Amino acid sequence: MQDNLLSDEFFMRAALREATVAYEENEVPIGAVIVSNGKIIASEHNRTEQLCDVTAHAEILAITAAQMHLGAKFLTDCTLYITIEPCVMCAGAIKWGRLGRVVFGAPEAKFGFRAVSDKILHPKTELTTGILEEECAALMKSFFAKRR
Amino acid sequence: MQDNLLSDEFFMRAALREATVAYEENEVPIGAVIVSNGKIIASEHNRTEQLCDVTAHAEILAITAAQMHLGAKFLTDCTLYITIEPCVMCAGAIKWGRLGRVVFGAPEAKFGFRAVSDKILHPKTELTTGILEEECAALMKSFFAKRR
Repeated sequence: MQDNLLSDEFFMRAALREATVAYEENEVPIGAVIVSNGKIIASEHNRTEQLCDVTAHAEILAITAAQMHLGAKFLTDCTLYITIEPCVMCAGAIKWGRLGRVVFGAPEAKFGFRAVSDKILHPKTELTTGILEEECAALMKSFFAKRR
Repeated sequence: MQDNLLSDEFFMRAALREATVAYEENEVPIGAVIVSNGKIIASEHNRTEQLCDVTAHAEILAITAAQMHLGAKFLTDCTLYITIEPCVMCAGAIKWGRLGRVVFGAPEAKFGFRAVSDKILHPKTELTTGILEEECAALMKSFFAKRR
């Protein structure tokens, strides 16, 4: 597929750059960006170690930042790109934030929200999976291999 | 039951005071406290409107505050008191934070985590329900009646 400035691959690549920063900071390497009208309005990575806060997942930080940017609680016209399938906590936040679309790279069999229920997201939230899946998953694999 | 300084009622009363503050601020009136070694180390209420942030639920704010207080990510020896059954997002945060015990006042049939799955909390997290249930529920009822 040819790269396009506005393609899912383009924005997932931005999320992957955030994940790489997390990797370098010894955080579980997950990155997220939120896009509104073709522009990135929030760009975050997992910071649970740095902030000593289990709620500081990339998605939570990105949703908070996007709301601040827009001055609005609901992100109906936004797309969240996240390198790894969101956990239950983040899927709940995505529902409260009424994200219009969620795109993730690699599935997460154990901690992904679908292990609990695929009904956590709002039925109107469009879900796309598998964008740059191998690269998103490889970063996680490398991180946990390094830790062992 | 006789009130006891260290009883569940005592700490739920503190969470109810937080919920009342939320009510007065026109926030959905939910309050939370986290208790460690018999002392309240975090006391928060829902602030989603004030912070324009759907993730600013009482539980999320309290978990973040307790972690900061203890300088630790895991709250294994802590009890979270919350006036209303946590939502899926907050139940996910409670799992990540490894709370030893969760006590809530009133159930929430629609948005409570058990509407999705009663397996979201960690199996080792002890769950107690129904403490000051009527008062916790009455505050919510009054809030939504006022809004209509």
